Amino acid sequence: MRAIAMPDLEAAQAALERHLQEHFAREKERFDYGELFDPLYFDLSEFVARKGKRIRPLLFMLVYRAMGGSRSLHDAAVLGNAAALELLHTFILIHDDVIDRSERRRGLPTFHKLVEQRLGRFHTAERIGQSVAMVMGDIVFALAVDAVRGVEVDPPTRDRLLGKFLHYSIDTGVGEIFDILYGARDIARLSAVEIERMYHYKTTRYTFEAPAVLGATLAGAGEEKLDAIKAVMGPLGLAFQAQNDLAEFRLLSVDDPSTATDILEGKKTLLIREAFELLNETDRSFLQMCLNSANPNESTVLKIKDLIQKSGAVKLLQARCDSLFQQAEQAVGADVIPPEEQDGLRSVLGLIRQLAK
Amino acid sequence: MRAIAMPDLEAAQAALERHLQEHFAREKERFDYGELFDPLYFDLSEFVARKGKRIRPLLFMLVYRAMGGSRSLHDAAVLGNAAALELLHTFILIHDDVIDRSERRRGLPTFHKLVEQRLGRFHTAERIGQSVAMVMGDIVFALAVDAVRGVEVDPPTRDRLLGKFLHYSIDTGVGEIFDILYGARDIARLSAVEIERMYHYKTTRYTFEAPAVLGATLAGAGEEKLDAIKAVMGPLGLAFQAQNDLAEFRLLSVDDPSTATDILEGKKTLLIREAFELLNETDRSFLQMCLNSANPNESTVLKIKDLIQKSGAVKLLQARCDSLFQQAEQAVGADVIPPEEQDGLRSVLGLIRQLAK
Repeated sequence: MRAIAMPDLEAAQAALERHLQEHFAREKERFDYGELFDPLYFDLSEFVARKGKRIRPLLFMLVYRAMGGSRSLHDAAVLGNAAALELLHTFILIHDDVIDRSERRRGLPTFHKLVEQRLGRFHTAERIGQSVAMVMGDIVFALAVDAVRGVEVDPPTRDRLLGKFLHYSIDTGVGEIFDILYGARDIARLSAVEIERMYHYKTTRYTFEAPAVLGATLAGAGEEKLDAIKAVMGPLGLAFQAQNDLAEFRLLSVDDPSTATDILEGKKTLLIREAFELLNETDRSFLQMCLNSANPNESTVLKIKDLIQKSGAVKLLQARCDSLFQQAEQAVGADVIPPEEQDGLRSVLGLIRQLAK
Repeated sequence: MRAIAMPDLEAAQAALERHLQEHFAREKERFDYGELFDPLYFDLSEFVARKGKRIRPLLFMLVYRAMGGSRSLHDAAVLGNAAALELLHTFILIHDDVIDRSERRRGLPTFHKLVEQRLGRFHTAERIGQSVAMVMGDIVFALAVDAVRGVEVDPPTRDRLLGKFLHYSIDTGVGEIFDILYGARDIARLSAVEIERMYHYKTTRYTFEAPAVLGATLAGAGEEKLDAIKAVMGPLGLAFQAQNDLAEFRLLSVDDPSTATDILEGKKTLLIREAFELLNETDRSFLQMCLNSANPNESTVLKIKDLIQKSGAVKLLQARCDSLFQQAEQAVGADVIPPEEQDGLRSVLGLIRQLAK
């Protein structure tokens, strides 16, 4: 049995951090665009080096091993693909933060805020920061794709990896667009099915399916086995996103409404939709009014919090999460996955649940 | 001798337009993201289908043939790579227009304005339009890379094509960032060398070197020959960008200051830098003051126009352009390029000069 124990995960994490650092040191040569660009490259490598959970690259590495991949986790091809996933994530974070006008990321300024700070007092510094961050995001996307391209594996496997990597990037973009467009839609005109589909592209495919499918692909899995893995990652991803909604709601409960980023940004979450579903007519209208407010303030946020609490949606969504996690675990038992790989996948699920907490 | 005559160019243009249309029809299947995404996909395919000069894909196709490429211009690999260059351009236009907050592109609304219009009256419609356009741009970039990946050529050539495609994308991004950052810098603190470097990445590499190098690569050219081609494209690209500055200035001369997009957007062009260099102390300060105005209006633009006119920079830059075009033509005569390929390249230069007018 190929059980994956905790020390492996820590070793994988350490190898990944080292590889990312080395990657930026190595690429520095190519990025010899003069002194104007140097500080941006420095900021970018620092931004990537910030302490993150690294769920995507780690899931990739763990699934690769669980599915019978024989290379060491220190192998350049394994680390190269893992780094590509983290770079893809960096690109998406940079763009997301511009879209949401967020100021903080992983406890430090967002990338566009870093650029803005470097410019000092200038009448268009804020917009220049956003514009530069947007283009830097594009550059990081190109770097991510190039990292997959640079991996030393047989050409057909690399082509499969690259094709899937690009397709998942597109899915993620579509999920983000749904998220943005739903922000403008009244909660009454948005079904739970629609929100779940948005979560599917934005979180499930991107954070769970893509790393797992790429890891299994590198390990040599065929399409049938990949479908079985998707069936595991589907409920897992939805459960995680729903749990994320619940975690944000719990933060809200400590009565600091400024932490209610989802609500302040007008995001339509499954939790809000569930609450709307459960409330009576009067409370529904009140919730709608709060959500549609052009300038949501602290009191709006606290009202929304009270309504969600009152609705009983929290308990319901928690139960849904538990059942989704069970569903994911059951899906591991698919016939097409050999028993020792099933054991490996179960260990991975356990590790990822711990990691994501 | 492989002389490339005008009918070939028209046939190439027609084949390219057809291929782009078919590409979007074919990809539609994969983009089955439901009714929320359908209008965006429709807008995107219409946006790509707008009448453009198609300089980049055509230059790619023409250089491919000039350098001895034996496939027909109707070949899927040739058209696939050409389409990838047009998709890369689409991505860059969409992002550029968001950055510059431009409203019109190729005579119609910019992509973010199309999205905004579809949203109707909504208090954040403008920002949602920009955000969606940003992510759609990202998706188009992924589509462009995927078009290169999907091309049927031997794996080593495809890998070279893909690597170069990504590296040129990065160069272009860096050039854009220079352009954005220079907008915030006083003209006195910006040398002609710096502006030329920005042009080098933003225009020369992107519009001339990338298509030509990719075309020659598909035709099987080695690195030495590629260097000779770069030596042709270097002066050509700079000449085109400088001529672009002059063309915009000529538009300005018809006394409609709203056409002065470069100046209104605070762009630092070589023409402005040359004018600054040539003016006396008093006029310099006046020009600086106008350029640094937080809200440039029509009268500011007309003052800048008068100062440029007075400086004599127009004549000087025109002379520089002519000499750069000559330089490009001389560079065609490099020893490493066989005579019949030199003839082919000369025809290409002639066609591209006509096309770009």
